[in-house]
Amino acid sequence: MSEHTYKSIELTGSSKKGIEEAVHNALARASKTVRNMRWIEVASIRGHVEKEKIAHWQVTMKIGFTLED
Amino acid sequence: MSEHTYKSIELTGSSKKGIEEAVHNALARASKTVRNMRWIEVASIRGHVEKEKIAHWQVTMKIGFTLED
Amino acid sequence: MSEHTYKSIELTGSSKKGIEEAVHNALARASKTVRNMRWIEVASIRGHVEKEKIAHWQVTMKIGFTLED
Amino acid sequence: MSEHTYKSIELTGSSKKGIEEAVHNALARASKTVRNMRWIEVASIRGHVEKEKIAHWQVTMKIGFTLED
Amino acid sequence: MSEHTYKSIELTGSSKKGIEEAVHNALARASKTVRNMRWIEVASIRGHVEKEKIAHWQVTMKIGFTLED
Amino acid sequence: MSEHTYKSIELTGSSKKGIEEAVHNALARASKTVRNMRWIEVASIRGHVEKEKIAHWQVTMKIGFTLED
Amino acid sequence: MSEHTYKSIELTGSSKKGIEEAVHNALARASKTVRNMRWIEVASIRGHVEKEKIAHWQVTMKIGFTLED
Amino acid sequence: MSEHTYKSIELTGSSKKGIEEAVHNALARASKTVRNMRWIEVASIRGHVEKEKIAHWQVTMKIGFTLED
Amino acid sequence: MSEHTYKSIELTGSSKKGIEEAVHNALARASKTVRNMRWIEVASIRGHVEKEKIAHWQVTMKIGFTLED
Amino acid sequence: MSEHTYKSIELTGSSKKGIEEAVHNALARASKTVRNMRWIEVASIRGHVEKEKIAHWQVTMKIGFTLED
Amino acid sequence: MSEHTYKSIELTGSSKKGIEEAVHNALARASKTVRNMRWIEVASIRGHVEKEKIAHWQVTMKIGFTLED
Amino acid sequence: MSEHTYKSIELTGSSKKGIEEAVHNALARASKTVRNMRWIEVASIRGHVEKEKIAHWQVTMKIGFTLED
Repeated sequence: MSEHTYKSIELTGSSKKGIEEAVHNALARASKTVRNMRWIEVASIRGHVEKEKIAHWQVTMKIGFTLED
Repeated sequence: MSEHTYKSIELTGSSKKGIEEAVHNALARASKTVRNMRWIEVASIRGHVEKEKIAHWQVTMKIGFTLED
Repeated sequence: MSEHTYKSIELTGSSKKGIEEAVHNALARASKTVRNMRWIEVASIRGHVEKEKIAHWQVTMKIGFTLED
Repeated sequence: MSEHTYKSIELTGSSKKGIEEAVHNALARASKTVRNMRWIEVASIRGHVEKEKIAHWQVTMKIGFTLED
Repeated sequence: MSEHTYKSIELTGSSKKGIEEAVHNALARASKTVRNMRWIEVASIRGHVEKEKIAHWQVTMKIGFTLED
Repeated sequence: MSEHTYKSIELTGSSKKGIEEAVHNALARASKTVRNMRWIEVASIRGHVEKEKIAHWQVTMKIGFTLED
Repeated sequence: MSEHTYKSIELTGSSKKGIEEAVHNALARASKTVRNMRWIEVASIRGHVEKEKIAHWQVTMKIGFTLED
Repeated sequence: MSEHTYKSIELTGSSKKGIEEAVHNALARASKTVRNMRWIEVASIRGHVEKEKIAHWQVTMKIGFTLED
Repeated sequence: MSEHTYKSIELTGSSKKGIEEAVHNALARASKTVRNMRWIEVASIRGHVEKEKIAHWQVTMKIGFTLED
Repeated sequence: MSEHTYKSIELTGSSKKGIEEAVHNALARASKTVRNMRWIEVASIRGHVEKEKIAHWQVTMKIGFTLED
Repeated sequence: MSEHTYKSIELTGSSKKGIEEAVHNALARASKTVRNMRWIEVASIRGHVEKEKIAHWQVTMKIGFTLED
Repeated sequence: MSEHTYKSIELTGSSKKGIEEAVHNALARASKTVRNMRWIEVASIRGHVEKEKIAHWQVTMKIGFTLED
């Protein structure tokens, strides 16, 4: 019951707006193929610069999910 | 005078809204028992996922404060 | 052409508002002397605390830019 | 022949008993979908606490396996 | 509700028998003064050597607990 | 458009000749099942020693690729 | 007997003179509230610069002490 | 007297049974040539997988010992 | 005389051919503006992938040089 | 006002006498070209050995300074 | 049988030509006194610069070998 | 000639007085059995506390030396 097995994968989400939205964009994309997502942990925060501004944020994260038995 | 001693403790604040608010929530709770807080440093940014969205952000931080003489 | 050389420097930007704005403030200041900025990577997120709130966020980042030939 | 390609994935196994069993539980679950597993490396050892005891150990590990040609 | 604040402290537990028992010994001692413990994470595993054997294991861990409102 | 999501996986490539070829061997193997590969980053360089020489190099790398929408 | 539990806390000591004295100043302050201190480990060495000189050294350290039964 | 010099070496011990025994096996082997061993610190925990089980645990550790005057 | 001061900067060199040439390309570019270079240390090795091959290697390095008195 | 931008550079200072003096020598050299230095953080402490003694200490540090508007 | 004990030592090999040859040079030197070498792992890649070129590469590696019973 | 091989070992030196002397004590002890020492690098700085003072400093360092051909 509490002896689940979890898997974690590494994704990078992008957003023009900010860090939180980049995480949500990655979750939205991941949900097409992954079920039972439980947590994320941010691994790095980067930004692509164009015209001296952040054109889009790139947040790399681990996403953990329960493996079904 | 400038030869203060500082202590740092590690807290994790939560927020449904975002990273900055999770830090503020931790500071608000810490202020009940800790005085003279000077700085925070983010140690990790995690999120609890429910229904493929971040249900709440969990930001772990060190909080530094001056020890009174 | 694709064999560019890049240089990266380390800046700390500040903002009363939040993490993203601290990055933008650093980019705005850097653009006075640096051209061809391409990316940033966040190295640390700190905050200066006054009256139990974050008075300003301090985000340290590497900024990468292309060296002209 | 010796020029194999290996892939490694990250799993977290759980056990009420201890660290070694948490690793074995993860291997047992992984063996349902992964073949040719060769090694594991422990990345973190955590425990979920209930009633002031470890209710279950959570061991995160990389599992390496040979990719078939 | 889910917007708890957590604190983590660092303890080192000892045991003549092994790693898991060293963690339990630290939890038993911590429970005298700390309530609402939720998780531990192992930070280092050391052993004191006497007569070419491990006389006692020393496991350093972070212990996380909920701060009551 | 620029708001892609990327995934990264970890592979270890082998080569009798050297580090660069071990990376290329891993890419060649990965291309059988992965599309849209964009970058690699070397995580570790190891070598298997036989008769006091490197019998084959083993380069572990992250490979990043775009997830199609 | 040898199965003590230890706690470690993180302090930053300051000194106009140098690194060793900054450690001693932190120990002197800590001794007002902590008993049975056993070891310190330096975590970082920083200096506050005024007029192109180190106005005071700031040494952050872990201090370990035995918890009484 | 307390101004000893210590040396530390890095060994990897193996065991079919578990982590603690792998450490003891390394100490037993080391005791053939090293005297005055004082402590060990675990650097990594790996396992060799055969038939979807850990065939033997491989624990890499630093072993510290006093150099005689 | 031996009490030199050194500065180190961080550059990323590129090459279609391999890791060593990427370092040399960065040194060649740096030599246009920096004198008295003494050492490099590789910080990361990345590659840009096109058509399932490394289109160019990107080696980030610190370059140290003597500051003239 | 408090929304300054800071830059940090990496220098290595040398001294025959000790660690603190090596930092001061680097600051003295840096002050020829850098204004508004605020803090240093030690990154590594090395020593060059001649005749079984430290001929000179080499302390690598980050130096942070305010960028003028 | 599979319960070997391994020792690892740290060497730095040099080469005018490149990274792989620096590793081989270290292995050749080590083979004068060490038997049963099994693997190497690269710990750092540095280069000594003369006349704006790498005069020799310096690769620091761990070398693992089986201890005979 | 410049293609030397270096070995590095890890020692911990002690001193009642301070960090620099702990390094020198380790070098003095090492010189009984090791020739051609070239550099040290400090890995950790610890102190043993007695009566709320540092009874002796313990500095762990790598010592590098040239292997004779």
